[in-house]
Amino acid sequence: MNKITVTGFRWAPPFAQGLVRDLRVRWALEEAGLPYEVRLIDIADRNSDSYRQQQPFGMVPAFEADGMGLFESGAILHHIAVDSEALMPADRRDRASTVTWMFAALNTVEPPVQNLSVMDLQQSEEQWAKLRRPGAVDAVKVRLGALSAWLNGRDYLVDRFTAADILMTTVLRLIRHTDLVAEFPVLDAYVKRCEARPAFQKALRDQMAEYARNTPAAA
Amino acid sequence: MNKITVTGFRWAPPFAQGLVRDLRVRWALEEAGLPYEVRLIDIADRNSDSYRQQQPFGMVPAFEADGMGLFESGAILHHIAVDSEALMPADRRDRASTVTWMFAALNTVEPPVQNLSVMDLQQSEEQWAKLRRPGAVDAVKVRLGALSAWLNGRDYLVDRFTAADILMTTVLRLIRHTDLVAEFPVLDAYVKRCEARPAFQKALRDQMAEYARNTPAAA
Repeated sequence: MNKITVTGFRWAPPFAQGLVRDLRVRWALEEAGLPYEVRLIDIADRNSDSYRQQQPFGMVPAFEADGMGLFESGAILHHIAVDSEALMPADRRDRASTVTWMFAALNTVEPPVQNLSVMDLQQSEEQWAKLRRPGAVDAVKVRLGALSAWLNGRDYLVDRFTAADILMTTVLRLIRHTDLVAEFPVLDAYVKRCEARPAFQKALRDQMAEYARNTPAAA
Repeated sequence: MNKITVTGFRWAPPFAQGLVRDLRVRWALEEAGLPYEVRLIDIADRNSDSYRQQQPFGMVPAFEADGMGLFESGAILHHIAVDSEALMPADRRDRASTVTWMFAALNTVEPPVQNLSVMDLQQSEEQWAKLRRPGAVDAVKVRLGALSAWLNGRDYLVDRFTAADILMTTVLRLIRHTDLVAEFPVLDAYVKRCEARPAFQKALRDQMAEYARNTPAAA
């Protein structure tokens, strides 16, 4: 791949910093050793006609490489990973497992985790959120319990670090404001193991540096 | 692929019939022209140790082919589609778009749609659900509006029918109990176009026939 461009937000409010999903793509590119450029947009830009042509839902990340545009962090990671053994093993059984866990992170674990995250970070003053929170926590714990059982005795979701671990770690980070992951020592160690990777540290540092540089005067 | 086995539930309560996710896999296999066997489990079986080895979250579908096990409907469809031009075009740009829309269906459209579906079908008597429903409907409409804008003038998500349309159609079916899809004529026509396919009709008929055959005496 050449001429890689990742689209992210110019700035994000503090509660969201470190959680915005272009972090997943930056991390994957660092693991794969692929240089990239960043295109930063204002949150308001996401509703422009031109951006919607690139990302129909007006979200980030969007991605361009080899003159081709993609969106959805899962799809972008898949696109990067199929050509990078750092992110997806060559063995066909392990490849299938990697894809399985990529979808599991995004379609089974993320929905309840994201629900709780949005509820706590953006809707906590609403009456329904106060009533719902215990049930939303229970829904998260069901998934974390199953994930913890799987990871017990394993360092990574598949035999070695893959793109699926990038997705799962960034999903679990969405509830970093709670103690829920810490309640499962296996998961706590797993997230710390993945976050300790130099590629993660570099991706996060780069994303945060841009937010710092672009902090609005009023924030 | 040979010796394909799809795991689904022996029976599902009427509100869930036609929505259980092994339908996605059956539909994909019918489109690809691949024969398969079905392994039916009781809902209670999903918590057994042996099933959790196969599907760590205790959900359906699970899938076996060529002596390899997978789970997650998205991953299973991807696995079938990469070897079937009926589900994924050969052109590399179209392949990337297909994968993009597969993730978009499951990670951007499904979460709010599934939230509303569960709220209406299983939690509607709870006070928080009554308070939350208008906001949950709005969240669905945001996604449906963006999807409708994309599909306006298109028959399918990519240039032609792909695995992404199977996922998106079955996601939109999760709110068949509402008029929300009908409020977007482009989406209404899209779902009807996809549901009219013989492969969908056959997959649904086969799934429903097994539920009918296995209806508990008390139901």
